[in-house]
Amino acid sequence: MTNWKEVDDNIKHWIKEAGTKIRQSFETELTIQTKSNRNDLVTNIDKETEQYFIGKIRREYPNHQILGEEGYGDQLQSLDGTTWIIDPIDGTMNFIHQQRNFAISIGIYHDGVGILGYIYDIVHDELYHAKKGEGAFMNEIKLSPLPSVTIQDAIIALNATWVTENNRIDPKILAPLVKDVRGTRSYGSAALEMAYVASGRLDAYITMRLAPWDIAAGKVIIEELGGTVTNLKGEPLNLLEKSPIFASKPGLHELILKKYLHKLV
Amino acid sequence: MTNWKEVDDNIKHWIKEAGTKIRQSFETELTIQTKSNRNDLVTNIDKETEQYFIGKIRREYPNHQILGEEGYGDQLQSLDGTTWIIDPIDGTMNFIHQQRNFAISIGIYHDGVGILGYIYDIVHDELYHAKKGEGAFMNEIKLSPLPSVTIQDAIIALNATWVTENNRIDPKILAPLVKDVRGTRSYGSAALEMAYVASGRLDAYITMRLAPWDIAAGKVIIEELGGTVTNLKGEPLNLLEKSPIFASKPGLHELILKKYLHKLV
Repeated sequence: MTNWKEVDDNIKHWIKEAGTKIRQSFETELTIQTKSNRNDLVTNIDKETEQYFIGKIRREYPNHQILGEEGYGDQLQSLDGTTWIIDPIDGTMNFIHQQRNFAISIGIYHDGVGILGYIYDIVHDELYHAKKGEGAFMNEIKLSPLPSVTIQDAIIALNATWVTENNRIDPKILAPLVKDVRGTRSYGSAALEMAYVASGRLDAYITMRLAPWDIAAGKVIIEELGGTVTNLKGEPLNLLEKSPIFASKPGLHELILKKYLHKLV
Repeated sequence: MTNWKEVDDNIKHWIKEAGTKIRQSFETELTIQTKSNRNDLVTNIDKETEQYFIGKIRREYPNHQILGEEGYGDQLQSLDGTTWIIDPIDGTMNFIHQQRNFAISIGIYHDGVGILGYIYDIVHDELYHAKKGEGAFMNEIKLSPLPSVTIQDAIIALNATWVTENNRIDPKILAPLVKDVRGTRSYGSAALEMAYVASGRLDAYITMRLAPWDIAAGKVIIEELGGTVTNLKGEPLNLLEKSPIFASKPGLHELILKKYLHKLV
């Protein structure tokens, strides 16, 4: 039996330690490589940070499996047992260009069920975290259950890409939503945008094709607060695959599905 | 003759004092009213902050004219003489919903020429400031002249609104730009988005219909660094009117005008 309290203590310690190293890296030069395309930058810091977490996990929890963005973890066939899902730096482009608006994201799932979630906004020293059934927190502040909100009062994270011609969604589907909401924002970090839904800074977040490591932590935290995280058809996510993501306050989720996204079903 | 050094010292002092009060306000309840439409929220803090600045300016510089968002300044007929252009809180919606991503913006113009510019990101304690001909700074760090960048490598601030049906611009004009750039962002504060262009966090910022107080400070700072701030046709701004804004690194400004915005001319 896993001692989740001990896992929680360890993760918090490791995340803070990794954060300190990343902050220090701002003073040194970054080595930038590009992954499969030029929008998917990866730095030596991403790689080192993932290797740091994997080293710690392998030593403390040798029976757990690990899924990591940089590929130093395992090739998963299922989510049976305990799985760590890690993005060492979510928002690498922001990390490089802005030294702001990026986060460490770690979700832990047991037999496919989210148990623990951590999103660490290093620059602001804000650690969003949740344990299933025991509440969600920003640092030591307990977050309130998410209230419902109307479409007209909502601020949603939605990138301009998804309302212009693209390969993932008909731009006409989300365009009316952009018109109807109070405002849209786009920060370029899925983990942070989900943390902002959890903390009420945003009311919803919609994007196409995220990887499991982008959303594993945010899903645990938002669901612990009564919010909903699905694909754009309102269906449960498969954390072994890339997927569109629709994370929202509870009532708003149904409203947006019914009024705008039903065209996808 | 105005002693600009003294003005600069005064403004910095007043801005920091206003920032401290605003930070303290987070602990008290905000009173929210709506202005002409529901997206244009205004709080008692905006009003009090503008009145604070106007009181200081009237006492120290009784011959200067003042243009302020909340309307406690003068009704300007021209920019002759010295004019203070003030937005006490740019990004009020963020201020209310996020307690982040808003700024104080103050620009000072003499006979229509920008002399001093200040954008204070209160939460991050980052004061962007410039004096014409004497450099631009973030706190005490001197900012470098803006280098040119290609369209493919650019991160631009552009809200999804301007590529969906709206009253200000044909959405087809900017849609190809969204496809071609490395990424788009949207923070919901014109002053901050201009400060980010100045500091290199963004490469350009495009939006429709801003007021003079949204951009007066950013224009001084960006131009001091060799960047360009115009309307979307590349024409000089009239700071007595609302206008579309295109702020950019130098080479990128010409590239975007030529490839995308020429359709407007």
